[in-house]
Amino acid sequence: MLRTMEALETFVTPSDVRAARDVIHGRLHRTPTTRSAYLSAVTGLDIHLKLELFQKTGSFKPRGVLNNIHHLVDAEKRAGVISLSAGNHAQALAWAAHAIGVPATIVMPATAVQSKVDATRGYGGEVIQTNAPLMDTALEIQRARGLTLVHPFDNLNTIAGTGTVALEILEDVPDCEVIFAGCGGGGLLSGIAAFAGQTRPGIHVFGVEPDGALKMGPSVEAGHPVAPERLATIADGLAAPFVGAHNLRHVVKFVTQMTTVTDEEIIRAIRILMERCKVVAEPAGAASLAAALGGRLALTPGTVVCCVISGGNVDLAKLKSLL
Amino acid sequence: MLRTMEALETFVTPSDVRAARDVIHGRLHRTPTTRSAYLSAVTGLDIHLKLELFQKTGSFKPRGVLNNIHHLVDAEKRAGVISLSAGNHAQALAWAAHAIGVPATIVMPATAVQSKVDATRGYGGEVIQTNAPLMDTALEIQRARGLTLVHPFDNLNTIAGTGTVALEILEDVPDCEVIFAGCGGGGLLSGIAAFAGQTRPGIHVFGVEPDGALKMGPSVEAGHPVAPERLATIADGLAAPFVGAHNLRHVVKFVTQMTTVTDEEIIRAIRILMERCKVVAEPAGAASLAAALGGRLALTPGTVVCCVISGGNVDLAKLKSLL
Repeated sequence: MLRTMEALETFVTPSDVRAARDVIHGRLHRTPTTRSAYLSAVTGLDIHLKLELFQKTGSFKPRGVLNNIHHLVDAEKRAGVISLSAGNHAQALAWAAHAIGVPATIVMPATAVQSKVDATRGYGGEVIQTNAPLMDTALEIQRARGLTLVHPFDNLNTIAGTGTVALEILEDVPDCEVIFAGCGGGGLLSGIAAFAGQTRPGIHVFGVEPDGALKMGPSVEAGHPVAPERLATIADGLAAPFVGAHNLRHVVKFVTQMTTVTDEEIIRAIRILMERCKVVAEPAGAASLAAALGGRLALTPGTVVCCVISGGNVDLAKLKSLL
Repeated sequence: MLRTMEALETFVTPSDVRAARDVIHGRLHRTPTTRSAYLSAVTGLDIHLKLELFQKTGSFKPRGVLNNIHHLVDAEKRAGVISLSAGNHAQALAWAAHAIGVPATIVMPATAVQSKVDATRGYGGEVIQTNAPLMDTALEIQRARGLTLVHPFDNLNTIAGTGTVALEILEDVPDCEVIFAGCGGGGLLSGIAAFAGQTRPGIHVFGVEPDGALKMGPSVEAGHPVAPERLATIADGLAAPFVGAHNLRHVVKFVTQMTTVTDEEIIRAIRILMERCKVVAEPAGAASLAAALGGRLALTPGTVVCCVISGGNVDLAKLKSLL
């Protein structure tokens, strides 16, 4: 219902997030939050990991997509949805659309990793690969076929869906004081911050960007979306070419501070997650832990921290090159 | 109390395993069992994974060790324990002894991986490295210092401890029909089979050995422990130089069948676990899944299977060489 009321001052409420939880319940995994004794010992903090890499399709993305598609009217659902992605959003859209019985078309780059194309098709999506700009192609097909565009992040129902990550964290770690979440276009971060900020006064949500793909930090400073100067990071999941207006608005209101990590810090976090926590995070998924380990933010010893490990879709060949 | 009654006909009972669960409760993790939609689809089975790689110290080992030490008399606990290991047992012993307040000495090869030596020391164990045969050195120190030897697998209380893995599997997957578990000396397999076999008539427990380190299969055939002809496998955790007499007896009575996997099948299972399940298994931990995927045992489509992913302690350099 939010779709017809997307005034610029609109914010997602905790009640929107709880409704999104009812939408995803039984369709998506309720992923575990685990405490790491090792990470707590080395940082002096009390570190928990929200293991969203165990989510269906390997990332948090279907939470937002499923809630987005759920709120379409029947005619839109019947006609089908379309989006564009080289990565996790493609698989999430294909999966979520299939779960809800809606046809999905995904525009992907001609150079997309074959395993991601295969996975997207495997979930039942129609994949169209192109050398042209993805958005142009998607809009063209959208118009020609009368489809509905499901934006990868800049949508209020999507934000309500990603907010369920925070809802679950606060159920599992009720005394959580700080949440670190990676930020590309801002879909995950805005939802988490909106729910945590409105239900837990005093909690701090920190957004984490790779220093090679800064968008949200500069946008917050400027007060409007600022395009990244460059997109040079191993964290392809955080290398969105722009931030969403809805996302930025939520970040400005509910995020304590944006912070940055280097690719080297991300790689170190990936290695620690593998060696000590036995999980495979993609670079975007490890950025939150990299920030907690990096120590740029001075946190009081013993602070109860949760890092959102947002996804684990990394090509083994790429992973091998990082080890 | 079993220690004084280790007659050759003695078997661990479900009640021993339940008592072991009370011993480990609150000290060890209750690890999750998850269903894999992907693995189920590709095999036609209904595949669950018992993710014991998330256990304290990175493997199932502390379940048995903790229960073993718990049942020592006070004088033995005060004097301290000793064992020998190049791998997971070393860390588990150091950790469990520390948890229960008992001094621990661990004899490790001079050539042991430094990270494992460090981890063992980090858990509070005294590490003695030697070029001599480990057992000789351990027995020598044991006598000189009056310590108690905690055998890595051939002990009834250890078997009762590893049986808790099956107890948890059957709580989480009540309709489980088949369990695959890796087999080195037989500690994990014997406990799982003893509990499952005595509480769930009709369940099948399959033991999995690397074809480069066959011990249990030949021992079952011979009716007594048979030394391996060779120990040539990447699954160092399954390359025990002998099987335990207690372990063999439980395997003969409660295991349906021993089966084998190749190193190539293990590597394939490791890759699938990383790519699709986002977890890092060590070779010994992936052998169970390798067997389920290998298809040497003809299982009816739809059979409810649980593979015990027993550990995740693999050096990143070694892991890299496998990818």
